[in-house]
Amino acid sequence: MSSAKRIPYSKEDNYAPDIIGQRQKLVEEATGLKLQHISHYSFDPHVAQGNIENFIGVAQIPIGVAGPLLIHGEHAQGEFYIPMATSEGTLVASYSRGMKLLSMAGGVHCTVTEDQMQRAPVFVFQSAREAREFGKWITQNMDGIRAAAQSTSRIAKLKHIECYQSNKFLFTRFNYYTGDAAGQNMVGRATYAACLWMVKAHGGVARWFLESNFATDKKGSQINSIMTRGKRVTAECTIPAQLLKDLMRTSPESLFYHYNVANVAGFLAGVNNNGAHSPNGITAMFIATGQDVANVSESSAGIMYCELTPEGSLYISITIPSLIVATFGGGTGLPTQQECMAMLGCEGKDKVNKLAEIVAGVVLAGELSLSSAISSHDWVSSHEQYGRNR
Amino acid sequence: MSSAKRIPYSKEDNYAPDIIGQRQKLVEEATGLKLQHISHYSFDPHVAQGNIENFIGVAQIPIGVAGPLLIHGEHAQGEFYIPMATSEGTLVASYSRGMKLLSMAGGVHCTVTEDQMQRAPVFVFQSAREAREFGKWITQNMDGIRAAAQSTSRIAKLKHIECYQSNKFLFTRFNYYTGDAAGQNMVGRATYAACLWMVKAHGGVARWFLESNFATDKKGSQINSIMTRGKRVTAECTIPAQLLKDLMRTSPESLFYHYNVANVAGFLAGVNNNGAHSPNGITAMFIATGQDVANVSESSAGIMYCELTPEGSLYISITIPSLIVATFGGGTGLPTQQECMAMLGCEGKDKVNKLAEIVAGVVLAGELSLSSAISSHDWVSSHEQYGRNR
Amino acid sequence: MSSAKRIPYSKEDNYAPDIIGQRQKLVEEATGLKLQHISHYSFDPHVAQGNIENFIGVAQIPIGVAGPLLIHGEHAQGEFYIPMATSEGTLVASYSRGMKLLSMAGGVHCTVTEDQMQRAPVFVFQSAREAREFGKWITQNMDGIRAAAQSTSRIAKLKHIECYQSNKFLFTRFNYYTGDAAGQNMVGRATYAACLWMVKAHGGVARWFLESNFATDKKGSQINSIMTRGKRVTAECTIPAQLLKDLMRTSPESLFYHYNVANVAGFLAGVNNNGAHSPNGITAMFIATGQDVANVSESSAGIMYCELTPEGSLYISITIPSLIVATFGGGTGLPTQQECMAMLGCEGKDKVNKLAEIVAGVVLAGELSLSSAISSHDWVSSHEQYGRNR
Amino acid sequence: MSSAKRIPYSKEDNYAPDIIGQRQKLVEEATGLKLQHISHYSFDPHVAQGNIENFIGVAQIPIGVAGPLLIHGEHAQGEFYIPMATSEGTLVASYSRGMKLLSMAGGVHCTVTEDQMQRAPVFVFQSAREAREFGKWITQNMDGIRAAAQSTSRIAKLKHIECYQSNKFLFTRFNYYTGDAAGQNMVGRATYAACLWMVKAHGGVARWFLESNFATDKKGSQINSIMTRGKRVTAECTIPAQLLKDLMRTSPESLFYHYNVANVAGFLAGVNNNGAHSPNGITAMFIATGQDVANVSESSAGIMYCELTPEGSLYISITIPSLIVATFGGGTGLPTQQECMAMLGCEGKDKVNKLAEIVAGVVLAGELSLSSAISSHDWVSSHEQYGRNR
Repeated sequence: MSSAKRIPYSKEDNYAPDIIGQRQKLVEEATGLKLQHISHYSFDPHVAQGNIENFIGVAQIPIGVAGPLLIHGEHAQGEFYIPMATSEGTLVASYSRGMKLLSMAGGVHCTVTEDQMQRAPVFVFQSAREAREFGKWITQNMDGIRAAAQSTSRIAKLKHIECYQSNKFLFTRFNYYTGDAAGQNMVGRATYAACLWMVKAHGGVARWFLESNFATDKKGSQINSIMTRGKRVTAECTIPAQLLKDLMRTSPESLFYHYNVANVAGFLAGVNNNGAHSPNGITAMFIATGQDVANVSESSAGIMYCELTPEGSLYISITIPSLIVATFGGGTGLPTQQECMAMLGCEGKDKVNKLAEIVAGVVLAGELSLSSAISSHDWVSSHEQYGRNR
Repeated sequence: MSSAKRIPYSKEDNYAPDIIGQRQKLVEEATGLKLQHISHYSFDPHVAQGNIENFIGVAQIPIGVAGPLLIHGEHAQGEFYIPMATSEGTLVASYSRGMKLLSMAGGVHCTVTEDQMQRAPVFVFQSAREAREFGKWITQNMDGIRAAAQSTSRIAKLKHIECYQSNKFLFTRFNYYTGDAAGQNMVGRATYAACLWMVKAHGGVARWFLESNFATDKKGSQINSIMTRGKRVTAECTIPAQLLKDLMRTSPESLFYHYNVANVAGFLAGVNNNGAHSPNGITAMFIATGQDVANVSESSAGIMYCELTPEGSLYISITIPSLIVATFGGGTGLPTQQECMAMLGCEGKDKVNKLAEIVAGVVLAGELSLSSAISSHDWVSSHEQYGRNR
Repeated sequence: MSSAKRIPYSKEDNYAPDIIGQRQKLVEEATGLKLQHISHYSFDPHVAQGNIENFIGVAQIPIGVAGPLLIHGEHAQGEFYIPMATSEGTLVASYSRGMKLLSMAGGVHCTVTEDQMQRAPVFVFQSAREAREFGKWITQNMDGIRAAAQSTSRIAKLKHIECYQSNKFLFTRFNYYTGDAAGQNMVGRATYAACLWMVKAHGGVARWFLESNFATDKKGSQINSIMTRGKRVTAECTIPAQLLKDLMRTSPESLFYHYNVANVAGFLAGVNNNGAHSPNGITAMFIATGQDVANVSESSAGIMYCELTPEGSLYISITIPSLIVATFGGGTGLPTQQECMAMLGCEGKDKVNKLAEIVAGVVLAGELSLSSAISSHDWVSSHEQYGRNR
Repeated sequence: MSSAKRIPYSKEDNYAPDIIGQRQKLVEEATGLKLQHISHYSFDPHVAQGNIENFIGVAQIPIGVAGPLLIHGEHAQGEFYIPMATSEGTLVASYSRGMKLLSMAGGVHCTVTEDQMQRAPVFVFQSAREAREFGKWITQNMDGIRAAAQSTSRIAKLKHIECYQSNKFLFTRFNYYTGDAAGQNMVGRATYAACLWMVKAHGGVARWFLESNFATDKKGSQINSIMTRGKRVTAECTIPAQLLKDLMRTSPESLFYHYNVANVAGFLAGVNNNGAHSPNGITAMFIATGQDVANVSESSAGIMYCELTPEGSLYISITIPSLIVATFGGGTGLPTQQECMAMLGCEGKDKVNKLAEIVAGVVLAGELSLSSAISSHDWVSSHEQYGRNR
């Protein structure tokens, strides 16, 4: 049926120069193109084993450095230079502008308030009544379930299981602590082991699936904004009026008015984020630091809150309720990614909450910058200056 | 207040080796780290002007090639090798598996059904009544508005304006055709010009903002799933039972059962996508081809539909209602990105719908692969094989 | 299988005393209960023909009168006494309190900004491409479609058809003007006729249903908040600080602070109304005036907006985006319902927008009253006074 | 400012004939109308004390009897005649048709799976960190909180408190068991007492409100569909193909196909209920039995699930995740309402789950009837027969 050649593969060493070259050649022949840039990378491809199949080279994404940003977190403390990988003109400049504002206002306060990763198996029964009873059975059998789940990993800790009955289903969400890893694979393996144990021990499950779509992995959802997926992290700052005037050509009143109007718009539009553009900063940091960038889907959720203080300053904060970050696993160990981690002081163990705090601080900088541009009607002109507008 | 040094900047040439080196040195000094990999790139940084500020190097993201995938689009026709930039193990292998299935089933049918990009200014009045009347005024003054908007671009065409009154606001959404560009900047500039004209011509606008949060740029929303942001594109295929059994160890019945259960879960969870993981494929292609990756937020929405045919096959389709892709502008012109575009035959003019069709076809391959793994309980074991699980 | 008796039915006159008595007797025998109150009604049951089947009597719902409320609408002008049918203690008193406040503040301004009723047929095709083309066909055949639809009614006017493609479906929403009626039946009949004409004229529709669940009849939905179902109506008022202090023991600042916090809560909770309790007033007026009370589902949506004015007053408004009201048809012609209509001056023709304005004004009164109670921590104590708390 | 007269009120006895008469006279004079029907009621108005203020009479809503419906619940068992108060023609007939189908299919299985009522105070702090710590404080002080809450009522039991941090807020939801009452007032009073205790005992709460909009009282919300407000109740039945053909002129395949399409439509529309019209049945029973009808807002949510069994039958079920019903308090003790309760065998203690099961069974009957009408294209013609169509 297919006339196109299969992609070359080597059982012995699929990351060796020869087999990579064969794949590059196939692509070049198929497309009449010489791969001059993709094939230009600075590391031994074997380091990418576990990260990629059918390796042919790399995408080179420009990195700009923003900052410094003064952060007062429980984990991140001090001034940080932020690596942002993006091809969107204006972005680094805009975030830098916000970082300057936050730093001059005394720094951004960042706090991780929740931390858990889910897998969401569903159990099918003959009736709603059986589904309800299975929920009780789970409560009574948490020790066995936990033992089965945690037998698969030294890291994963099963915190609790949410149960939601609907129709003849019991939808569950297994919540784990996953250490420095984002943990999606870890919780998949743990929950699979738990499910096998449960199905055998209970004996009455008609059918089950390891994932029901209730973890909403790689998708935005109300449940994850409510319940947290990954880290729940908040950045907050109080900005004096004079600073907003001097640096941003706007005022607390103007920013607050726009915030208030945007709430109505967002509510009507059914948006998952009443802020301006947190995914811009999140994505740029995700690419730079080797995160699973598809998690921008979940991580795009945000909850902004502003108020005018009695002194006439602007209190502004954003909570990112499902920020999925890791300092271990996935792409975090790749060469350029490790360098970016090091720039942030997030290499090594027990740094994942530090990274989450930094991301939140960066996001708030971007919110202030773009909101100010909208409020002061500078937005289009700034893009004219930096962006390649057409 | 700040003890950290400012990031070096050159007014004359901020992309010259010297100033880049100064920035690298700053980072190295601040972090005690030698930038060996980030500084390794294959192009003259001046090509990234307009894409990045404060350039210090590149993120190297591994690219794997998947496919071939047989596509029957209106623009994409034939077999395609797909470049996917990711650091998530298993992803390329999983998508390749789905592509094989689709190709053996006769190929995936892809169709772009809608195409528009928005900017959403809000106009504030003294009362709801004035806001309503302004909506009528817009209808009566479309010629003037369109002329003002289109005076800013040879490409942008103002298609229509949606108006939604709430409270004393008139929320609008300006819908444009933007050619081969994603168009966010283009429509920002056009709408800004239109607004200036409107505010002056009408005379009764109390206050306005160029963006109200109703375009939901960089955020997922119900309105964009309903109304389309970027391209609305559908991929569909009918898969014979025997193929599902042979290649995926599952069956139409099992996949359909899971689809049906996942609908309930997704509905309860308040998810923006009743499919499995379309953002995985979208993100990998976005990074590879120089898209604005933060648009994964909008592009993560998806509407799956399955049915069992009378012959016992599985009809499966996904509509991506707000896929934001470009073949011009942003990062699409960067070196590795251009090579990936060329691999897809999407370099040059009038190829953006072709790219949209390819993305949709790739997404459907991924849906089939992951859904099959869930249905057949193979999911965890396949991650053990390819992914670097911990 | 069933041992219970069938409910008596008379082909000749199912509203005659005898057959009603037989049904009452059946119920009494089955339950050992004497129907003393249900059987007590003040009208000839034949007037309820078209409103009820298997008539056995009436529910008696207490009516309290609230007001007077000073309204400045385009249709409702002057002071109104409001009949509210409810069994929830405190409700009438609380709304009255809000009405007094609004009246003393100069009256509530009410405006209907949109008016349309939907039926939402879906058309199924072999592919997305066919579905897209059918959307174009609809645009080109609006004359024929309109003629077919409007042939069924002297009142119904087909305004426009929304088309949303997804997968192999074309979802449509037919929007009608329906005069003084709510119009659900009218638009059902009109759309059915239109569909028959379309399916025949086009020839390529594989399958269709008169309702796809996209009108979301009797259900709350984002689409109806965005697009309007029934009337879109706004009530607004600016309340001086002194009045809030004197009448409500609260202040603009306190009410605004709570509004701002409640926005965040509502956004996280995924609510369809960022106000306090508009359905309380709506339901009480719906029951009193013979509306289809199940439409509280759609009518429960609301969009609150508050701001502090430079003078320190509170501007407050609510938009009800899908208020379904009628002054003709349904229960509006029943005896007690007619009396309530007359109390509002809404009997007779062309009064439906007047009724919508009154409802909106009443709703805003209730929002002010409850929000003030929450802000001033009076809420529980006021329930102690009026409600039968346990 | 106001020229209209104040509504007469008597401190001594506001439910005495004289003062009621004065109010009736006021209305009559203001509107030039003689209240012949509203003033016709069969009970001493003093029984409505606690239910209504400014009593002037009653709304008479026609009641039809539907059924019998065979129910297999844990509380409701046997055949039931259902009182439905509505003015919408066809409704009683349509539900009766569905009840006949369910009864002939062996009866509907109904199960209450969850039961709780909420009040949702918010606590405001100086920072996110303080808000997070307060969440921990709550966990550690549950005994004190529970004691304070439960001191206000013999019935209310505080089950658990959900805590959701966002920005500098801790949003909470207090979940109570409330016996036979719906419980909104009971939980308001209990939570108010708990909050007073908490604020005093903790000492660091900057500001708080008894309700944040997170209980979403009288409003539909995702959180209540997920977490349950009132009763979570499921009705389910398996319907043989032959019955669907004989009674409904449709088939399992046709109903299932429509269900599948309607899921897509509902998902796109952002609806809170993927079924057809559950609020129709709920509202009619709420009016008849003295429920707080404004709770149709929450109670309108529904989750349908259908599947085709291997035998070719249709398994159909609906879960109502936030059905708010009571057999005590509110309007449940009023005269006609008590008679309707008695018809259902729900008078007296410990019957609230029985009532919930009956409502669910009735709802499923209505779903089957309307879905069949849509599938078989009978919908419009049946309305022609029964409804007063115009």
